[in-house]
This record gives sequence, C-alpha cells and structure tokens, in this order.
Amino acid sequence: MKLATIRLKPDPETDRAVADSGFGWSLLPTNISSVSDLLRTPGWAEIVAQQRTAVAEDEIASFENPLPEPAKVICCGLNYRHHILEMGRDLPEFPTLFAKYADTLIGPSDEIRTHVHARLDWEAELAVVIGSDLHRASRQQAQQGIAGYTISNDISMRDWQRRTLQWFQGKAHDATTPVGPVVVTADALDPEQGLRITCAVNRETVQDSSTDQLVFDCADLVAYISGFTRLRPGDLVLTGTPGGVGMGMEPPRFLNDGDIVTTSVEGIGTLTNTVVFA
Amino acid sequence: MKLATIRLKPDPETDRAVADSGFGWSLLPTNISSVSDLLRTPGWAEIVAQQRTAVAEDEIASFENPLPEPAKVICCGLNYRHHILEMGRDLPEFPTLFAKYADTLIGPSDEIRTHVHARLDWEAELAVVIGSDLHRASRQQAQQGIAGYTISNDISMRDWQRRTLQWFQGKAHDATTPVGPVVVTADALDPEQGLRITCAVNRETVQDSSTDQLVFDCADLVAYISGFTRLRPGDLVLTGTPGGVGMGMEPPRFLNDGDIVTTSVEGIGTLTNTVVFA
Repeated sequence: MKLATIRLKPDPETDRAVADSGFGWSLLPTNISSVSDLLRTPGWAEIVAQQRTAVAEDEIASFENPLPEPAKVICCGLNYRHHILEMGRDLPEFPTLFAKYADTLIGPSDEIRTHVHARLDWEAELAVVIGSDLHRASRQQAQQGIAGYTISNDISMRDWQRRTLQWFQGKAHDATTPVGPVVVTADALDPEQGLRITCAVNRETVQDSSTDQLVFDCADLVAYISGFTRLRPGDLVLTGTPGGVGMGMEPPRFLNDGDIVTTSVEGIGTLTNTVVFA
Repeated sequence: MKLATIRLKPDPETDRAVADSGFGWSLLPTNISSVSDLLRTPGWAEIVAQQRTAVAEDEIASFENPLPEPAKVICCGLNYRHHILEMGRDLPEFPTLFAKYADTLIGPSDEIRTHVHARLDWEAELAVVIGSDLHRASRQQAQQGIAGYTISNDISMRDWQRRTLQWFQGKAHDATTPVGPVVVTADALDPEQGLRITCAVNRETVQDSSTDQLVFDCADLVAYISGFTRLRPGDLVLTGTPGGVGMGMEPPRFLNDGDIVTTSVEGIGTLTNTVVFA
C-alpha cells in the first residue's frame, strides 16, 4: 500500500490524503489532509481499507510532503557500512543522531530555496515513518511500530554545519529537506533486503548504494531513539546517506542555483528538487 | 511582570496560567492553561492586564513548567566568556547549537527521573522565551521579539553525549530538563546588566557566574537562530552554562540518586529538582 498527500487540480489550496492498494489512488475522508493526519487517527488502516473514491492521475495537481507535521525529525549520520569502511573508519558502536524540524521539510517536487548561498550538499536517505507510540521499544516493538518508508534528501549547508562542532545549524535550515513522494507501508517493503538508493545532480549519478549497507537498520534506529525520547505516529527517522556526497569529492563540489537534485529509493519513487538561490 | 503555570489545590488536574504585576498572582482566563497557551494568544499583554481574580499563595498546589509546548527548544553550548578563556580556548565566532524537545522538559520542582543511570551532569542556564514570529530577525527585532526570561538546567547524560560527535542524544532524554518557576517579562529584567546565575548540588554551590559573561547574548542568539529557522511564541532558547559542571572537575563528579539540584537566576527564582534513578 502507498499513502500520499496530494493537491487536486480543481482545489489547489486544499491538501488531501490518498491511498493506493494497487488499483490506483483513492481519496481518504475530507477531514484527513495529510499522511500526518492519517497516522494520528486511531484505526487508520481500517479507514484506508474502506476508501473507494478513486482519483485519476490527471486530477492530481501535485504530490506534497506526505508528512508535514512531525513533532520529531531525527536523523542518523555515518550509517552506510561500505562508505565507512572505505573511509578507513571503524564501524560505529552507537548511531550519530541530530535533529531537524517540520519547518525544515518540503515536498517531493518543491524548490530547495536558500537565501544564505551556502555550500549546499546532497544526502539521499531512506526515511522511516513512525506509526505507533514508542517508548523504550525493543527491536521487535520498533519493527511493529514502523508505519512505512519514504525518501528524503538531508540537504546540508556544509559551511554552517562546520561553523561549530554540532551539525544542527547546517541541517535545520527551513524548507530545504524534501520528503516523499509517497509512504510505502511496512508490509509492502523491506529495506533489509536491499533497496537501491541513488542521488543524481543534473542527471549525473553521484550516489548509488543499497539499504542493505545500513549499519543500524530501521528497527535498530527506532528502538535506540525510543530509549531516550518517545516517538509518535507521523514522526520521521532519516537513516543516513551512502558515500558520494559533494563534500567528499576531490575537489569538493556543492550545489549551484538551478541544479536539479533527483533522489530515488527502489520501490518508493523519486524526489526531484531544483536549487534556487533566492 | 511575572507569568507562570500553576496547579490549584482544589483542582490539581487542571493547569492554569497566572500573572503577577507586583500585587500577587491573578488567574488568567480558564481556557489558557499555560504560559505557552498565553503567548500564542494574540494580544496576550492586554489579556494579562485585564485580569484581577487574585489567587493566594496558599491556594497554589504547585508551579509547573510554564512552557509545556514549545515547538522548538534550541540550546547554546560554550557561551560563558570567563569559562571559555580559563579553559585556554578562543572565544567562538559562531554559537554552538543543538536541540531538545518539549518532551525533554519538566517543571521547576519535578523529579529528574532517569532509567539509564547515566553520568548525569548539571548545567544552570538562563532561558529566553520567544514572544513573536521571528524570521531572519535583526538584533533589534530579536530583542523586541523576546517575551521574557526563565531558568533551565540543561541536565546532560555525559556518557550518551560522548557516544558520538553529536551531543543531541545526551541532551534530549525525556523529562530531564527543568524549566521555570516563572517567566519574567522582558520589560522587567535585563540579563545584559548581569544577573547572578548559580547551581548547587545538595546545597553545595557548584556554579556561580553572571549573565554578563554571555559571549552571544539573548538577542544575538535569537537573531542568529532566526536566520536559519523560524521562531514562534513559546519557543525556548537556552543560552549556555557557566564553568563548574561536574564533567570539568578533578576527578569528574556526576549526580547520584537522591541528589537535590538547585538552580537560580537573580530576579527570576529557583528550580529545585531531585534526581531519581528509576
């Protein structure tokens, strides 16, 4: 099953949640304006199962950020095995974690607009969507509490990130992190089996790896985080990025005004975002 | 003027916002359950000015966290001039920032409960309470957007903080950071003039400094943060801690089960919190 937040062509100001069980998109009830809304509704799987109001592809104006209102967006760094080993580092004992905000997020085809003209870098990531209240969850409880998976690009302002020892201020610039285009529910996708994850800049592939390279997999990360802070439906966990970021190139390479960043995860879809130096 | 969130003795399940203009506490309207609620209400200063329903001290069961619902709690590290210089470091060019959550916060007399039995350390801090929407604010706009000031103790799990390069996971343990007991409005308090800030453990003073030692003062921090992410009424900015934390002692010293942590800022009040290893 896929879940999404869309805008309809006749009514472009109103967002609606939709679901696709394999037979095309169906509208969810009008009071549910996003996947965030849906996941906070008790018994959401039944609500989804009951929908039969089909919406044709050509009625959809755009796919929006499916999860506009997470209370927590927690990101992991240094989490792709192959990349860590090729850098000559040891595999980490603990996940490296930092925070973004709902304000940081944009939709799957929105512009990445920045006024700081910083050293913008790409970081294609698989994102975990939380579906239950999780507090000190075991790995099994964490797995059961995952609603599904989506794609993100943890766009990073490398100069701000390196101004101090803490990455946060380079990672939490408003409206710079695309999310979407859909959430694929956990029963339909298994990242442990290895999903191809890629990032391209102006059609040149710069990252190409597989989610079977994650040191801390999705359930590990969710369980670990829930050991110190509660996770709730609609919260997001970004699982880290594979090798191939611009900062690691010789010479380092950053995004420019007009660059098109394409981020894909097999079985979920593609984000396409243009960089705009505002 | 002072603002607070209290529980009344006859109705200990319902929190109420109160204000004190110098003549004792007055109840704010029943639909306003906290200072968070109040600050999100347009024209809150007028609402406060109109209240005359006095509440006697002996009717108050407890002072609660005045700000239970900030969307953003952003903290600064390495920000006390004297302490940085005595450590032989240069004054920083940029503030070091990291995030906590509303879930991290507790009230001014709540227990600091932890199940991880970690290396708990104290960090007395002046906290800035945001009163306006701030987006790329100048220093002057930031100053005008400050609703007031409160006290916090950025209780830190030093072992978790040092598991990786990013401090976040040692700083964001649920229900470990006390806030309160009141918010003093910005017209009534000027941290630039130097407010004494202290922390004591079991009545032994361990931190004793002044807010005139801040490298980045309150308006600087608020302006800087608003340059990358919007701040809104009720958000909190913790301004950093002076020298005297347990980690810096020889040998290092950490909090134990039953320790009482007392955190004071001149002109605001005192937090008194007992550590409980649950």
